Amino acid sequence: MLIVIRNSASNEERARLLALLDQIIVSERPIATIRIGEREVIALESSLLDAQACTTIRHADAVERLLPIQTAYKLVSRAFKATQSTIVAGDALGGQPVVIGGAHPVIIAGPCAVESREQLLTTVRAAKAAGAQLLRGGAFTPRASPYQFQRLGFEGLHLLAEAREEAGLPVVAEVMEPELVEAVSHYADVLEIGSGNMHNVPLLRTVGQNSYLRPVLLTRGLAATIDEWLLAAEFIVAAGNPNVILCERGIRSFDPETRNLLDLSCVPLLHARTHLPVLVDPSHATRRRELVPALSRAALAAGAQGLLLAVHPDPNRAVFDGHLSITPAQLHWIARDSRLITAVLQEPETVLQTLERMEDEQLRTGHRVYDGSARLESDR
Amino acid sequence: MLIVIRNSASNEERARLLALLDQIIVSERPIATIRIGEREVIALESSLLDAQACTTIRHADAVERLLPIQTAYKLVSRAFKATQSTIVAGDALGGQPVVIGGAHPVIIAGPCAVESREQLLTTVRAAKAAGAQLLRGGAFTPRASPYQFQRLGFEGLHLLAEAREEAGLPVVAEVMEPELVEAVSHYADVLEIGSGNMHNVPLLRTVGQNSYLRPVLLTRGLAATIDEWLLAAEFIVAAGNPNVILCERGIRSFDPETRNLLDLSCVPLLHARTHLPVLVDPSHATRRRELVPALSRAALAAGAQGLLLAVHPDPNRAVFDGHLSITPAQLHWIARDSRLITAVLQEPETVLQTLERMEDEQLRTGHRVYDGSARLESDR
Amino acid sequence: MLIVIRNSASNEERARLLALLDQIIVSERPIATIRIGEREVIALESSLLDAQACTTIRHADAVERLLPIQTAYKLVSRAFKATQSTIVAGDALGGQPVVIGGAHPVIIAGPCAVESREQLLTTVRAAKAAGAQLLRGGAFTPRASPYQFQRLGFEGLHLLAEAREEAGLPVVAEVMEPELVEAVSHYADVLEIGSGNMHNVPLLRTVGQNSYLRPVLLTRGLAATIDEWLLAAEFIVAAGNPNVILCERGIRSFDPETRNLLDLSCVPLLHARTHLPVLVDPSHATRRRELVPALSRAALAAGAQGLLLAVHPDPNRAVFDGHLSITPAQLHWIARDSRLITAVLQEPETVLQTLERMEDEQLRTGHRVYDGSARLESDR
Amino acid sequence: MLIVIRNSASNEERARLLALLDQIIVSERPIATIRIGEREVIALESSLLDAQACTTIRHADAVERLLPIQTAYKLVSRAFKATQSTIVAGDALGGQPVVIGGAHPVIIAGPCAVESREQLLTTVRAAKAAGAQLLRGGAFTPRASPYQFQRLGFEGLHLLAEAREEAGLPVVAEVMEPELVEAVSHYADVLEIGSGNMHNVPLLRTVGQNSYLRPVLLTRGLAATIDEWLLAAEFIVAAGNPNVILCERGIRSFDPETRNLLDLSCVPLLHARTHLPVLVDPSHATRRRELVPALSRAALAAGAQGLLLAVHPDPNRAVFDGHLSITPAQLHWIARDSRLITAVLQEPETVLQTLERMEDEQLRTGHRVYDGSARLESDR
Repeated sequence: MLIVIRNSASNEERARLLALLDQIIVSERPIATIRIGEREVIALESSLLDAQACTTIRHADAVERLLPIQTAYKLVSRAFKATQSTIVAGDALGGQPVVIGGAHPVIIAGPCAVESREQLLTTVRAAKAAGAQLLRGGAFTPRASPYQFQRLGFEGLHLLAEAREEAGLPVVAEVMEPELVEAVSHYADVLEIGSGNMHNVPLLRTVGQNSYLRPVLLTRGLAATIDEWLLAAEFIVAAGNPNVILCERGIRSFDPETRNLLDLSCVPLLHARTHLPVLVDPSHATRRRELVPALSRAALAAGAQGLLLAVHPDPNRAVFDGHLSITPAQLHWIARDSRLITAVLQEPETVLQTLERMEDEQLRTGHRVYDGSARLESDR
Repeated sequence: MLIVIRNSASNEERARLLALLDQIIVSERPIATIRIGEREVIALESSLLDAQACTTIRHADAVERLLPIQTAYKLVSRAFKATQSTIVAGDALGGQPVVIGGAHPVIIAGPCAVESREQLLTTVRAAKAAGAQLLRGGAFTPRASPYQFQRLGFEGLHLLAEAREEAGLPVVAEVMEPELVEAVSHYADVLEIGSGNMHNVPLLRTVGQNSYLRPVLLTRGLAATIDEWLLAAEFIVAAGNPNVILCERGIRSFDPETRNLLDLSCVPLLHARTHLPVLVDPSHATRRRELVPALSRAALAAGAQGLLLAVHPDPNRAVFDGHLSITPAQLHWIARDSRLITAVLQEPETVLQTLERMEDEQLRTGHRVYDGSARLESDR
Repeated sequence: MLIVIRNSASNEERARLLALLDQIIVSERPIATIRIGEREVIALESSLLDAQACTTIRHADAVERLLPIQTAYKLVSRAFKATQSTIVAGDALGGQPVVIGGAHPVIIAGPCAVESREQLLTTVRAAKAAGAQLLRGGAFTPRASPYQFQRLGFEGLHLLAEAREEAGLPVVAEVMEPELVEAVSHYADVLEIGSGNMHNVPLLRTVGQNSYLRPVLLTRGLAATIDEWLLAAEFIVAAGNPNVILCERGIRSFDPETRNLLDLSCVPLLHARTHLPVLVDPSHATRRRELVPALSRAALAAGAQGLLLAVHPDPNRAVFDGHLSITPAQLHWIARDSRLITAVLQEPETVLQTLERMEDEQLRTGHRVYDGSARLESDR
Repeated sequence: MLIVIRNSASNEERARLLALLDQIIVSERPIATIRIGEREVIALESSLLDAQACTTIRHADAVERLLPIQTAYKLVSRAFKATQSTIVAGDALGGQPVVIGGAHPVIIAGPCAVESREQLLTTVRAAKAAGAQLLRGGAFTPRASPYQFQRLGFEGLHLLAEAREEAGLPVVAEVMEPELVEAVSHYADVLEIGSGNMHNVPLLRTVGQNSYLRPVLLTRGLAATIDEWLLAAEFIVAAGNPNVILCERGIRSFDPETRNLLDLSCVPLLHARTHLPVLVDPSHATRRRELVPALSRAALAAGAQGLLLAVHPDPNRAVFDGHLSITPAQLHWIARDSRLITAVLQEPETVLQTLERMEDEQLRTGHRVYDGSARLESDR
């Protein structure tokens, strides 16, 4: 249940509403209003209220209306906000602001890990030239073992800030601990929650209360259902930060061919359920560079509003995860494909007319076999 | 290990080679040559042969060369045949022949089950008009329980044959038992092996030996790895029938949102491994009609060479599986999208030029937000 | 819905009931009675009948009562038959009859594949001496690739029959094709349906109609839910053969440590749902010999009514699957553990008294650390 | 690679070894010694050292020997410590100390969530009387949605401390944030890491460095492989706390029958790999109370060194998770079964002799059918 507060409600009317709710719902937990953009709401479990209580609340002076949302998540639901949310990244720290969820899919690119200043700056320049609109670099991302090379930490963040300065692009950086949220917000335009932290409620709450309201890129957990993922987003939004971006990067499955199984069904499923933008990360999902171009196209064709791609100027020499990093050249082709697929989705009739002219010409040039592997070749 | 026989080898040379192999490999099982199009080969487990044996075989008169293929599957491998296979369906029984794996993706459409003559013919006419190139109808597909409505069996096949007659399109029909393979081949242009039968070796062998060499649409099992799927295809090809088409329709996973989880990573993975065409069936994978248009686009963008779609003139009135069947109108839009995405894959530069002209105009017409849900709306 | 026929109903009364049902339920499929032991029933989808139809049927002369079973499976349900079914194997072909589902768990053992007469007979003698009560040998079980050693087929069945003769134990053999069911029934006391065939409805129906009514060991499919598994059993029973034994052998999961994931929760779940006996096969589930003793104990402690174990006199020399085969010595210890765990389940109070006497003595002999690995050592 | 330091090495010899390593391995990260009980070691990725470097290190004065451990985890490996670790819980805060990993399996029991003082104390008294040796209560465990009843937090911890006082049993409590580790250590004898936090490296490190060295109960993540789980344990031990207890509570799978799929194969697998104790939590794995008794027996028979059980004096009135909580009476029977199964594992010959006497008597008392459902009945 969402109680939508009238914009014009006075402080006194609000206080009376809260007192009324405290009377109706005997709860240990104080009931609080949440501000989402210009609206103010109170979210409650519907099971706490019977029909009479609903009537009483609906007639309170401060109340505009009640929204009886059936799903466990409420603020992230299309039932609460029917129109697509757009989120602006990068306006606060001086990079070029980028709209996520807008007319054009975005490409976030960067090295899997910040290895050195030179590696980072080379990658960033190449990624920008190839079409990336945001940078990403793992400064804190943990390794799987305590004995592996550890990330650079704050030194890595400094380097990312330097990269933003140089390239003029906003920066996405992972944050792992509630204690570091404020510090990372000084350097990063977007805070990334890694898949291992999707269930880390204290962290979700802290990025939600973060005073900078940095947009949060919320990666799906390896074993998370769609509903659990949206509930993780709800924790962030309910804490006060409406700027959440979802990022699919594969779920656990049985075939060892790819590290995880990229789930593209989630893209149209999420668009039907939530107003939040949805990105896809085929690099970390599959950990196989040769699959990234085809799956990037597929993600965009399914409706993804952006891609997160691991890129490295020389993947074969990367300290780690080279086998999953694409080259700047591949990134260039993916950016081109992104424009083409966006056109197909948004301007199908115009593209179709061009196509028909093209096909007329092909009729004169004879039969041609489309070989799945040929495109794969160019993808490498 | 594949032993490729010289085209010009005499029968006597072949017999000598077989005798030699019998000597080298003491096996219960007779060694046989397999004819794949114009080539003749002998396939063996590499572990049966040491270096010296290989040298002896290589010098036999009948032998052109040895292909040391590392994977367990051999004849379906790109290592055996580097170029994409195209398979012609429908030339024998009088429909319009259709090329699968060629320049254009194909659309196979039909009702989930043949309910009645009228339902079938209505669907078939509508599907053809909307862009389907092959028909599919489950005449034998089993129900999950012995007490549910059972399919029409041979009566259903007769109806499918009538539909082919009327629409002039080739027909795909499932076959469940080795005993029925010859009979179904009288009616169907393509034999479908359902996902529950991917491990049914006697059935795979029988469709491989089937005297009509009907193309076989081999659906992936719900828990099959890519390698197991290719081995199932190998059983068919090794039995003598090279006309195998692979069809992805989802694997088991943990989120009950969709019945199975559509795995689009398999499309580029398969293109790198096998020369066989790859189709995708988003209808049965998800069992959710509203996801089918977006996932059809995604499958094609990933490189799928066709789609298998459940369609029904009035899904809300279908006897079963209406919730997974799209309408003919939706099929029409998917067929259009298929043309557009094919153009993006095959003629990116031409499409890009058009796009740039379009974008120049848009610059004059102001900002526009692309909303994932908007397209979803039109998809319904 | 199950319609239970009065035992004393005359043929005429039955015919009238069938005619009545034909009138009420306009169905393509003839309605048939099923004989389960001494009872005769008619099974129908409840959705086909409204309240008035039920009343009419209940008052038909031939009807004893109606059982409104909610689950899709009916005859295999505890709602139909509340008491545990016991199934006798081996009485027809001359071996020592064995009760499955009775007071004592049974052990079915044998080589993964029949390699040769000598290997089979050596294994069988050793397995019997170690405590096996039924023999199992794969004579037809297919290999994963067409190029691997194929099983011996009918020659293997002859060998199995010889082994039964020698050991006096009933034989379990897999059957893969409807066409071979009658033939295999000449040799085998129990017909095994492999996990790849759990969805093979024509095969399920044929073993259900098999004139010998050989008990059927129905292995769970790799991706089958409990409900799907019980529906597969229902196909067999509805076809006329009530002698179905369920066998869990692992489902697909993400950790490559074991081939499949043994699901022991299914044992108490199945006992609550079905009266059919439940066995567990830890050998093929894990394909790791060193896990088999501990998981055998666990399966029995969970309530399994028997084990299916791959055994080989010299696993390290087995032609295949040696790594999953236990030795006869290990089988001996598992048989001993089976007796012990059965006692714990059936006579806990008596065992407890003994235990308390033992512990009194231990108090005088000082502290002792139970090391999980110590038992593991003896398990090897 | 583990470098084992001589116990008698002087501080100067140690310093020289570290300087040598700094020279050989140019690393950003300082190399540190880890104290595990009485031994001191240095852990390194083997790939950082070539053969010559190894020789040089082996001859350093401070070095006792090198252990070339192949797995990514090292300190938790049986290759490092062959004998079972026993961990004492409860000696610091005044409860009755309990040995985990010792001669007898332990039972940890408590309510799913601390609802109120009365609920907690009633449960605790009943659980102790029924045989529980440790208490567990979720004071911080997060809810799935921000709008559900939240746990009591520190108030819950105070109540748990009161319960320890009253019952004299050690207390297990979950900790969710690095910041709260020290605070929770004031109240709890064992710190629990929930399944959603298995990948939360900052939290793992903090409980490893926790100055109280409280034992850590490390729950397996829902999608964690055995190797990933052991690496999570390695993070804790490498940070300085060797007292880690592993707890299996199910992994994600496809059948909605149980919430997660309890993996009992992991028990013997872990015993072969690690010296750490292994517990099993069938309550939260299945979330079905009626399965808990059978799966508790199965876990112990597989070698589990303890159980974690949700218990509630009146499950049908529990505020949440009543359907997964067993009654004190059921707990009593599980404790009895635990003693019986321990006897079967540790004293099989003695139990067997008793059993044979019993069976002699049964021969005189006639046939008896063991019905899986009968035991299930008593389990309820």
